Amino acid sequence: MPLIQLALDFIDSTIAIDILTQVEPLIDMVEAGTSMIKREGIGVLESLRRIVPHKQLVADLKTMDDGAYDAELAFDAGADILTVLGCAHDSTILAAIAVANARGGQVMADLIGVPYKRRRAQQLARMGIHYIGVHTGSDEQAAGMTPLSDLALVRSAVSTPLAVAGGIKPTDIEAIVLLSPAVIIVGSYITRAADPRSAATDLRTAINAAMQGV
Amino acid sequence: MPLIQLALDFIDSTIAIDILTQVEPLIDMVEAGTSMIKREGIGVLESLRRIVPHKQLVADLKTMDDGAYDAELAFDAGADILTVLGCAHDSTILAAIAVANARGGQVMADLIGVPYKRRRAQQLARMGIHYIGVHTGSDEQAAGMTPLSDLALVRSAVSTPLAVAGGIKPTDIEAIVLLSPAVIIVGSYITRAADPRSAATDLRTAINAAMQGV
Repeated sequence: MPLIQLALDFIDSTIAIDILTQVEPLIDMVEAGTSMIKREGIGVLESLRRIVPHKQLVADLKTMDDGAYDAELAFDAGADILTVLGCAHDSTILAAIAVANARGGQVMADLIGVPYKRRRAQQLARMGIHYIGVHTGSDEQAAGMTPLSDLALVRSAVSTPLAVAGGIKPTDIEAIVLLSPAVIIVGSYITRAADPRSAATDLRTAINAAMQGV
Repeated sequence: MPLIQLALDFIDSTIAIDILTQVEPLIDMVEAGTSMIKREGIGVLESLRRIVPHKQLVADLKTMDDGAYDAELAFDAGADILTVLGCAHDSTILAAIAVANARGGQVMADLIGVPYKRRRAQQLARMGIHYIGVHTGSDEQAAGMTPLSDLALVRSAVSTPLAVAGGIKPTDIEAIVLLSPAVIIVGSYITRAADPRSAATDLRTAINAAMQGV
């Protein structure tokens, strides 16, 4: 059963906490989005942690350099997982993985912007990455892209647990679930909904329905 | 004459402000480093601005997605320049440039992690980027890399103003100045010095000496 990761992005932490409080029983993992961390600092994780003491918390740091520093920063703030960019230098990714392994945390590599995703996914798997994220960015979505074909490509390349992100809504779920991602990351479909709890329920219902067909 | 950009990174803003107060007359531009922004949030720019009301302030956001959002975030906080990653999607970089042009700011694209730097620099120049940053990351430096050969490669490819960063110290200046960068970015040589003011003086002296040979 894929886990639902709620991405809290493009909103301030007060609104994020309000939404999280509403939908918390319906989601499995919580992501402090890059934009929220850049705006307010890593301390936002502590505010989120108070709402979800027992769920996995992801710091979407999109680390491009200073892998050890960023991993310490994330875990010190209470994260279970941090993201690094797949296009970062191997030494950055390996440094983040080493800190994660020492501290009982995990690293998710985000393939956004990586030109040869299949080859890079295989390299990341060999490095010992914990998750590979297939992610169509907001600006890429505006340019008409979706994560589905990349998810199929990466799925065929590695057995590493995959996460998938990029404008995902309930109507996308059936095709996504067939490719067995470990984590489905959803942001604006829930956070920008008039009724976030209803949106999260629709998403979970779609996943349950799709899993019956697998 | 190349400008000196002081990169304030891996230190908290209290220490950064102390160092900046000491060396402010000796440097031209001030960068709020990625790690400081992730740790404390974009508000650190306002603290730096109070020390340097009339110098250019750079928000090293290393934007990989959400180009318009990050550019608004940086300029709202008082930045003159934000950084985007050269490996970001064109739509992200173009969105940041559009916001910068509308608001009288500028965008510096950081080539860290870009595999074909010459070709990407030419593409960035055509997009209307304001600066191209040739940057050897901390983790790359630990793996033995330096920015010099990349600077020569990119210099031969574009006429866009260049910035150069990556463990630069006074003994590197002569070779760098021959490649005419607009901006020389220096961080730890000053920020980790026992006497930051003396380190900044040594750097400026090296630049003055090297310029007499050009």
